[in-house]
Amino acid sequence: MTDKIKVAVNGYGTIGKRVADAVTLQGDMELVGVSKTKPDYEAYTAAQKGYAIYAVDPVKAGPSFKEAGLSLAGSSEEMVKKADVVVDATPSGIGKENKALYEKLGKKAIFQGGEKHELAGISFNAAADYDQAIGKQFARVVSCNTSALCRLIYALDTAFGIKKAQVVLVRRGGDPDDIKRGPINAIVPDPIELPSHHGPDVQTVMPHIKITTAAMKVPTTLMHMHFVNIALKGTPSRKDVIDAIKKWRRLWLIPGWYNIKSTGDIMELGRVLGRPKSDMMENCIWEESVTVDEDGDINLFQAVNQESDAIPENIDCIRAITGMEKDKMKSMEKTDKALGIGKFKPWKLAPP
Amino acid sequence: MTDKIKVAVNGYGTIGKRVADAVTLQGDMELVGVSKTKPDYEAYTAAQKGYAIYAVDPVKAGPSFKEAGLSLAGSSEEMVKKADVVVDATPSGIGKENKALYEKLGKKAIFQGGEKHELAGISFNAAADYDQAIGKQFARVVSCNTSALCRLIYALDTAFGIKKAQVVLVRRGGDPDDIKRGPINAIVPDPIELPSHHGPDVQTVMPHIKITTAAMKVPTTLMHMHFVNIALKGTPSRKDVIDAIKKWRRLWLIPGWYNIKSTGDIMELGRVLGRPKSDMMENCIWEESVTVDEDGDINLFQAVNQESDAIPENIDCIRAITGMEKDKMKSMEKTDKALGIGKFKPWKLAPP
Repeated sequence: MTDKIKVAVNGYGTIGKRVADAVTLQGDMELVGVSKTKPDYEAYTAAQKGYAIYAVDPVKAGPSFKEAGLSLAGSSEEMVKKADVVVDATPSGIGKENKALYEKLGKKAIFQGGEKHELAGISFNAAADYDQAIGKQFARVVSCNTSALCRLIYALDTAFGIKKAQVVLVRRGGDPDDIKRGPINAIVPDPIELPSHHGPDVQTVMPHIKITTAAMKVPTTLMHMHFVNIALKGTPSRKDVIDAIKKWRRLWLIPGWYNIKSTGDIMELGRVLGRPKSDMMENCIWEESVTVDEDGDINLFQAVNQESDAIPENIDCIRAITGMEKDKMKSMEKTDKALGIGKFKPWKLAPP
Repeated sequence: MTDKIKVAVNGYGTIGKRVADAVTLQGDMELVGVSKTKPDYEAYTAAQKGYAIYAVDPVKAGPSFKEAGLSLAGSSEEMVKKADVVVDATPSGIGKENKALYEKLGKKAIFQGGEKHELAGISFNAAADYDQAIGKQFARVVSCNTSALCRLIYALDTAFGIKKAQVVLVRRGGDPDDIKRGPINAIVPDPIELPSHHGPDVQTVMPHIKITTAAMKVPTTLMHMHFVNIALKGTPSRKDVIDAIKKWRRLWLIPGWYNIKSTGDIMELGRVLGRPKSDMMENCIWEESVTVDEDGDINLFQAVNQESDAIPENIDCIRAITGMEKDKMKSMEKTDKALGIGKFKPWKLAPP
């Protein structure tokens, strides 16, 4: 009866729970279930939402779920069997272990940015390299920071050509529920050796981009911040740059009159707008920060919601590797409409 | 055609925006509009939600709103004229200045906990003193911390009688968008003179309760935390205490298996549950912390969402002062159903 793509979500943490919710909002997808290792409030919310919950070892995990009043639908392997695609949102390194199962069962799978590029062979960003992933068995959606950089860099590279990008990332220490991460009161150059992995990670998506990155961690849970400096091949005006950014979905220019002073305000906007989980999945670029300096370099600040920014890319990646949608612009439009992304007044939807 | 109570919300900050949203969810209320001093992202979200926006001086504020693409519906005074009740959610001290307007126009008004008790003459908590407020022109809904204390103390006082309550409050420094508040890296005894105002504030609602409080501020934006010690007149068992807490709406006992380790997890639960703005309007009491010590004292930890916890009380207060509902239990039930409060599995809805 249904032609919907069956999606299983392996791992139900920060990314997994968001991918599961996002899948249920797509007209062309169906959620088979999610996997959890133990009963906790996240398992409770999965049950509340009516998601089937699977566990790696349901015999072992069964009693604790039962005691909590939750029931298990079966083993993770059974879940994978029922799916057309698995989104693997397990902690970094576990995806690598899971690959053998997907291969054994002949299933397509999407890994997250915590896994190495080589595991999947394709690192994915919807705007930049959707076409490459079409029909493939495996793909890797790059991390939140890399996804945001790919979006912006692709937009500016297609418009003007990029000579070199230099990005300083000020990263959140942990997510709001991540109380053991730190730092609690220091600025950590991380990694100390330069460049950070973010530049090479952008190159897994766009190998021709010359980019160096430096990253540090600070005591906040609300978003990452990027200072971006890009030397262009062309010599556009500030207006040209702003127009090039406005052309693309998922690049949101924050109007000055919004009086958004910090990442705290951005996440508060998400809350008040009624975004699911208050997620701000777009790159949030301060329009007032967009500057073309005397050498013609672009400089700007953008904030990135670490928890949610790669979720639309996971959804697009499902369409790409299953081949159910071959036009990236159409997939991005479907995804964004279903997720309510880009519903800001000054937002331009037109593709370039 | 409509018998709905017309509510105006004066001030559209942390409390005002939540009261406005909550009013639109009640079947027996209608939102006349909200007032804002300047266009910003909060004004933008009000416009997105279709709320009429008023300003104290629309002639002066008009051009900046117009430039932002927002239109003003008129002056705050015009808004008040159209309302049956005004919820004054302006910053502390401004409510006092506004009272003359409400008196001049013969309107009922609800002030917030930042105003003095004497301004309204009645300090309100739905469970504790709803009846007192019925039909009055003015009432004051006590602050987030005091509201949470009143709920818990009323439940235990009606069940067992309270000899004395001693509460230590560890307060959040500011809200997530409140970047100038601090502290950023210290623990501030606040106030240094003991007791803090919270104890006397509880007594504005329940004068017979003997209570002392001490408060400090810490660098977090996620909830307040109370350590509560209560000496009882009776000698209940731990189970009796838990049953007494479960009897009441808005007192939520966090089950141990939820694995909620911090206020970060509680607010994350609100996000994942899809609560509006992720708000957790209940007292969040760790069930595992509920202890009856050798002297028969109750000890427990509860967390309080500073932004939202007094919102249901504002809604009940509207029903009380307008006299549209004389039964507090019915009002609380209507409010909670409309706001989706208490939708947890282990939740008991039965009144005492």
